[in-house]
Amino acid sequence: MTLSLISTGLADEKDLSLRALDEAKACDVLYVELYTMKLATTLAALSELTGKPVTLLHRGDLEERSSRLIEEAKAKRVGVLVGGDCLSATTHITLVLEAAAKGVETHIIHGSSIFSAVAETGLSIYKFGRTVTMPLPEKGPADTVLRGIEENFSAGLHTLILLDLDNEKNTYMSVTQAIGRLTEAGVSPDTLVVGVARLGHTDSLIKAGKLTEVATVDFGEAPHCLVVPGPLHFLEEDALKAIAGCPPEVLKGRRVKPEFDRLIDKYISGCHRVREAMKTTPPPTPPTQAQIQNILDHVDRYLADAEYYKADKKPTALTSVAYAEGILDALKLLGIIDFEW
Amino acid sequence: MTLSLISTGLADEKDLSLRALDEAKACDVLYVELYTMKLATTLAALSELTGKPVTLLHRGDLEERSSRLIEEAKAKRVGVLVGGDCLSATTHITLVLEAAAKGVETHIIHGSSIFSAVAETGLSIYKFGRTVTMPLPEKGPADTVLRGIEENFSAGLHTLILLDLDNEKNTYMSVTQAIGRLTEAGVSPDTLVVGVARLGHTDSLIKAGKLTEVATVDFGEAPHCLVVPGPLHFLEEDALKAIAGCPPEVLKGRRVKPEFDRLIDKYISGCHRVREAMKTTPPPTPPTQAQIQNILDHVDRYLADAEYYKADKKPTALTSVAYAEGILDALKLLGIIDFEW
Repeated sequence: MTLSLISTGLADEKDLSLRALDEAKACDVLYVELYTMKLATTLAALSELTGKPVTLLHRGDLEERSSRLIEEAKAKRVGVLVGGDCLSATTHITLVLEAAAKGVETHIIHGSSIFSAVAETGLSIYKFGRTVTMPLPEKGPADTVLRGIEENFSAGLHTLILLDLDNEKNTYMSVTQAIGRLTEAGVSPDTLVVGVARLGHTDSLIKAGKLTEVATVDFGEAPHCLVVPGPLHFLEEDALKAIAGCPPEVLKGRRVKPEFDRLIDKYISGCHRVREAMKTTPPPTPPTQAQIQNILDHVDRYLADAEYYKADKKPTALTSVAYAEGILDALKLLGIIDFEW
Repeated sequence: MTLSLISTGLADEKDLSLRALDEAKACDVLYVELYTMKLATTLAALSELTGKPVTLLHRGDLEERSSRLIEEAKAKRVGVLVGGDCLSATTHITLVLEAAAKGVETHIIHGSSIFSAVAETGLSIYKFGRTVTMPLPEKGPADTVLRGIEENFSAGLHTLILLDLDNEKNTYMSVTQAIGRLTEAGVSPDTLVVGVARLGHTDSLIKAGKLTEVATVDFGEAPHCLVVPGPLHFLEEDALKAIAGCPPEVLKGRRVKPEFDRLIDKYISGCHRVREAMKTTPPPTPPTQAQIQNILDHVDRYLADAEYYKADKKPTALTSVAYAEGILDALKLLGIIDFEW
């Protein structure tokens, strides 16, 4: 028989597709898992719609007792209703693999998802980098989120930040709480952010502005998410003003250059300035051994920096080592040291 | 009145959500646009489902004659059925902004989309970087696609490549054609790719392997898309084998280093080698003016390189300018030139 993963889409039972509803009706047993996202629906509503009882799966049912589900699917047509689009969580992919390994056929029915619906903010879906999840404070630091924002921004991309939840404890992170975590982690209060609540529901809310401004907005019921835009196209600026009520002054002067552009421009203009202003003063005597040793120590420090930074700050590591190489080549060109690359 | 953008989802009319169907039924007039993606449905099927005539919109109707649609929406409830999730194309965001500017309310109904459904390949949706579109050969070069793949890969991310189409000419790019364009552009034949056809349809096909192997697979009817995976988690490797029939040997030794790591490691080991092997030979005489001029010309060439590459090859630009800076500092430390940074 089969195991069907049936997406319920963004908001409530009305977001099931006709295909999803057909699949659910054809199943012998129906489960719903409600811990990877908050659905604005109830077991009763899902039961009424599908015409059969719907049993709630707890976290452990999928993550630890998945083999029981798959055993059941060997003899019956088992359906699992999953919020959003059903394969956005690793848990569900694992379930598909486990079913495949045990020879159980799987049906995947897709549904609407925040991953594409976020385009309702007016930000181009083609300019989103990787999506990150802001963990609840008790589950860990915001480091991965910060790194995601920085990497995406450097690459000229927006970041969608999903907000963690604990459905069984009825805990849902709000835009305000997520902004609090970003602020604690050192994100500038002037950063442009877009707060999003209940996308796909009839009472959705999208609000853009400075971090500090958006933090004061009451976004109401969960689910919320947050977007940190990268550099904006003028059409995206217009959209943030029209759709998300973004104050125009927040967008001004915000054409922030990605980290590379900033570093490259800074170094290029510095080098040009030096080339124009420098004075050539040939030394009266040849370089001393002490002078040379001092320069080589300088090279070694930059090499050590390059190794230190290469895991996390790649542009810095690359700059350090290229700088060291420049010094070595200068010494070679002056006939002070001799080597081959 | 209102303008409703109603997503039809991934495949055929069965991918409309119950919410989308309600919205379509409530509209006074219904249009469908079929040029941003291929739908496996017909005007007749959509008419039968919604109980009203459905008129086909041509490209110009949305892009140039959008004001006519919005005029109509001032007096009537106008619905536009759009494939996939409706705001994934800039055209549709523009329409929303234009409606807002003219005081026409808009309703957005989301649907399933390749942007999240691509997780059916077994690749984690959280590890996708920006999505790119491979243009039809007559519409332009594959440069943006290549740059997208390289940037995503460097950042440890997968790339979803959507394939261009011209619905009015019945032209849909296939996986094989897209691979042909990648190969022409110099992508290695050993590159791991995942070909995907008709995701969300009952006869979907997902096949992973080397570029050259996947190019020979007959993926059948459109729509197709292609994924170039970044570095893989072991769970993703398992999934590509189980779901996409990936030959295990293609995954072996594939932990390719991103460009930065490669550059940084190369330079660091080169510098270390030089530091160990070099001989110090203090020159018998002070540097000559000709020697110094030669070195400064070298600096200027690297500076010019940095400016030349800064738009497209940022790591190269950064390396060039940091190298120039190293040379200038060496000359300063030797007392040959004088300047302040």
